[in-house]
Amino acid sequence: MDGASQETQKAVKWYPPAYDVRVERVPVPVIEHPDDVIVKIQLSGLCGSDLHVYRGHEGVEKEHIGGHEFVGTVVSMGSSFRPDAVGRPELYSTLKVGDKVVSPFTVSCGECHYCRVGFTCRCTRSILFGTPTLPGGQAQFIRVPWAGGTLFKVDSIAVPSADGSIPHLTNSSLLLMADILPTGAFAALQALQHVKNAPMLTAVPYPFNGYMPNILSAGKPLPLPLEDRILTFAVIGLGPVGVCAAVSLVDMLEDIVQSTRIPYRVVTVDPNESRRDKMQKIATNLSLSQLGTIRVADIPEATQVVGEWTAGIGCNAVLEIVGNNSALSLSYDLVQPFGLISSVGVLQEPPLPFNGRQMFDKNVSFDFGRCPVRSMLPIAAKILLNRQNVFGDVGGECSLIDRVVSLDEAVKSYELFDKGMCGKILFDPWI
Amino acid sequence: MDGASQETQKAVKWYPPAYDVRVERVPVPVIEHPDDVIVKIQLSGLCGSDLHVYRGHEGVEKEHIGGHEFVGTVVSMGSSFRPDAVGRPELYSTLKVGDKVVSPFTVSCGECHYCRVGFTCRCTRSILFGTPTLPGGQAQFIRVPWAGGTLFKVDSIAVPSADGSIPHLTNSSLLLMADILPTGAFAALQALQHVKNAPMLTAVPYPFNGYMPNILSAGKPLPLPLEDRILTFAVIGLGPVGVCAAVSLVDMLEDIVQSTRIPYRVVTVDPNESRRDKMQKIATNLSLSQLGTIRVADIPEATQVVGEWTAGIGCNAVLEIVGNNSALSLSYDLVQPFGLISSVGVLQEPPLPFNGRQMFDKNVSFDFGRCPVRSMLPIAAKILLNRQNVFGDVGGECSLIDRVVSLDEAVKSYELFDKGMCGKILFDPWI
Repeated sequence: MDGASQETQKAVKWYPPAYDVRVERVPVPVIEHPDDVIVKIQLSGLCGSDLHVYRGHEGVEKEHIGGHEFVGTVVSMGSSFRPDAVGRPELYSTLKVGDKVVSPFTVSCGECHYCRVGFTCRCTRSILFGTPTLPGGQAQFIRVPWAGGTLFKVDSIAVPSADGSIPHLTNSSLLLMADILPTGAFAALQALQHVKNAPMLTAVPYPFNGYMPNILSAGKPLPLPLEDRILTFAVIGLGPVGVCAAVSLVDMLEDIVQSTRIPYRVVTVDPNESRRDKMQKIATNLSLSQLGTIRVADIPEATQVVGEWTAGIGCNAVLEIVGNNSALSLSYDLVQPFGLISSVGVLQEPPLPFNGRQMFDKNVSFDFGRCPVRSMLPIAAKILLNRQNVFGDVGGECSLIDRVVSLDEAVKSYELFDKGMCGKILFDPWI
Repeated sequence: MDGASQETQKAVKWYPPAYDVRVERVPVPVIEHPDDVIVKIQLSGLCGSDLHVYRGHEGVEKEHIGGHEFVGTVVSMGSSFRPDAVGRPELYSTLKVGDKVVSPFTVSCGECHYCRVGFTCRCTRSILFGTPTLPGGQAQFIRVPWAGGTLFKVDSIAVPSADGSIPHLTNSSLLLMADILPTGAFAALQALQHVKNAPMLTAVPYPFNGYMPNILSAGKPLPLPLEDRILTFAVIGLGPVGVCAAVSLVDMLEDIVQSTRIPYRVVTVDPNESRRDKMQKIATNLSLSQLGTIRVADIPEATQVVGEWTAGIGCNAVLEIVGNNSALSLSYDLVQPFGLISSVGVLQEPPLPFNGRQMFDKNVSFDFGRCPVRSMLPIAAKILLNRQNVFGDVGGECSLIDRVVSLDEAVKSYELFDKGMCGKILFDPWI
C-alpha cells in the first residue's frame, strides 16, 4: 500500500530548494484505497502556479511529481467502483475502465457538507495535485483519491463517436477544465446570478426576485421595459482566466438574449497590449448576435466606454480577474450603484483599498474567492463545447495554449515559462 | 407658487448653528406642482439622525421644519392625480383624499431608471424630508413632491373597517415604515436572497440556482438532504434597526419553514445589556415554530454559540446593523466560507478592516449600503401586520417607541433625546 509498483513511468519531479526539475523514471502509481482511480494521462499542463513552487516560493520541502492539470483515461479503479455503489457520488456506480476524464486541480470527495452543497473548493478532504502529499499530472499515470467525487466524465458532455474520440472537444481544450475555464465561468456566473442583477434578467423589479415565493408575493410591481434591462459588464484582466471569463460571460449572455432579447455590452480591459491583441482576435471569433457588443480596451478607454454606454451610471457587474488593489479600485470605479464586483483574482495581503463610506454610498456588492471547480464543471463543459472555435485551438491566433511538447522537454519548458519566453505549455507524455 | 398660505399650522423649526429648535406657527403648505400631495399628519417621529442636524454636525445653514418620519391622511392632491393618469405610478390614478399614507424618509419619483428597477434610494430626484429644501414632518401638514411615486397607501396592507381605522396596525407602528423597519427587512432579505444561500432554501446545490434556466440546466445535482440545509444567522447590533432586522429575519424564516421544514437558528448580538434585555423580551414574544431558535448574546457568547451550532463552520449570513469596523470584523469572524455579510450600517471613513487574502480565502460575499425604502415597503408592510404584537406597542416592554407627546414638548424632547435620557419619541401634532 505504498504506491510502489514493478512498472515504471516517465515523470517530471521537482526538487528543493528551487529551479530544479528533472525527468525521471518513477513507479507507476497503484490503487491504495478503494475510492482510488488510476488515470493514464493524455495531456498535462504547466501552469503559472507551478512556477511558485519551481521558484521555491511556496515553502515546499520535499521532491514530488509536479502539475495539477490533466486529461486522460481510466485504467484501473478501486473496489468502491461497482454497479451497486448507490447512495454515493454517481461515478462510483457508473465509471468504467477506458472512460475519458478530467479533474479539478484539487481533490473533492463529493460527500462532505461543502461538496454536497456545491462549495467543492472547501471540501474537508481537499488535497492539491502536484505536491508531496499527492503526486501530480506531469507523468504518464496518476492516482486520483476520492475519485468518484473528484473526476468528471467527458462523455457526460458529448457522446464519443465510433473511434472513441469526442466530437468537437480537443484534449488541449479539456485541459482548461482543471482550473481556468471553470474559474472564468464562475466569475461570469456570479455576475449573472446576483439578485441585484435579477431585475434585468427577469423583468421583475428589485426586491421581488429570489427563493421565497410567499414573501416576495407581497409586491405586484410592473414588469420592466427593455430599456431598463440592458446589461453592461467589464472584465478586468485578460490573462488566460480573464479570457475564459470573457468568453464564458458572452456565452451565457448569448443564451440569455435568445429568450429575453436584452441587449448587452461587455468591455474587456487590460493595460498589456499583447493580451488585448489576443482578446481582440478571440472577440472577432465569438460570432455575437446583433444584441451583443464586445470591446477590448486599455484602462482609460474602458472608463470612457462604460461612461458613454451607461450615461455615467456604470456596469451592472465587474469581473475582477487580476487579484490586486489596482484592479479592485478600477472595479469600484466602473461598477454602478447596486452593482456587483465578482472577484476571482487571488488577492494577497494588502488591506482592501476601500473605506466603509464608499461601500455604503454606492450599495456595492462583492463575491470574493476561489472557484468551486468540481461543481462548476457541468456549466464549464457546456461553454467548452459551444466555444471550440476558441478553446479547441493550439498555437493559433486565438489559442490559450502555446505548444504541446514531450515530457523530455520539461526542463527547458519550465525555464522558458519561468522567464516569460513562451505561453502556456502542455505535455504529451507519450511522445 | 411659493408654498405660502393664509392658514397657519404648528411646526418644529430648527435654527442654525445648533441646539436651537422652536415651536412656531408657520404657513400650511399648499400644492406647488401637479405631482404634489398635502398630507395631514397623524404622527411624526424624532429620529437619531435628526440629532446630527440638531447638534450642527451636518453643515446645514438654514432654518427649516425638521423630521423625516410621518404617517397621515391625504387632504389635497395636485392635478396629476386623476383616474386617467395611466402609464404613471399607480397612485396617480388611484389615490383619494382621506387615504391614509406612509412615506419613506426621502422622495422617490417612481419614474426614473433607478426607481423602476427598484433601487429607489438612488432616485435621481431624491430629496430628504426635514431639510431646507423640503420641510419635514414635525408639523401638522406636509407637502410631498412626486407623491405618486413616493407615498404608500396603508389600505394596500389591510382594508379599513367601517370607522376608517386599519385593523391591527397602530399609527406608531406605521411610523416605523419611514426607515427602520424596511431597513431591517432589507438586511434580512439580502441574506435570504443571496445565491450562495439558495441551496439551503431550494435543496438545489450551488451553482444551479439563479435566473438562467438554460445555463443552469447543465447540471442534474442530487437534492440536498435536510441536514445540509439548516440555516444559521447572526444579527449584530440591537438598536431599533437591529431589532427590526431580527424580527424581519424571523418572520421571513417562519414563512420559509412552513413549506420547507428547514430548521433555523438566529443569534442576536449586542455588547449593551439594556439592548439585549429589550431584544430578549421581544424574542420571547415572537412565538417561533419548533424549527426556530433565537438567542440573545454578548460578543463572546455569540462567538461560542455560533461555533457550537455549526461545528465551527460559521453563519450562512451575518446582518451587520452597526456601521463600524468592530462590527465588520465580528461579521467576518462569524460568517462561514461562501457566506454573506449583509451590511446596512452607515459605515464611515475608516478603511475596511480586511485584507484581500482574507476575502479570497473565505469566499466572502458582501451586500453593502442604504435600503431602497420605497421598494421594500410592501414586504415591510407584511411583516408589520404579522408582528403587531411587537411593533404595535408604545411604551411597553417590547416597544421601540418610548412615548407620544405634543409638538409643544418638542424643545424638551430634543434635549432629552440628545442626552440619551429617553427612547424614541413621537409627536402627535393634534394634542
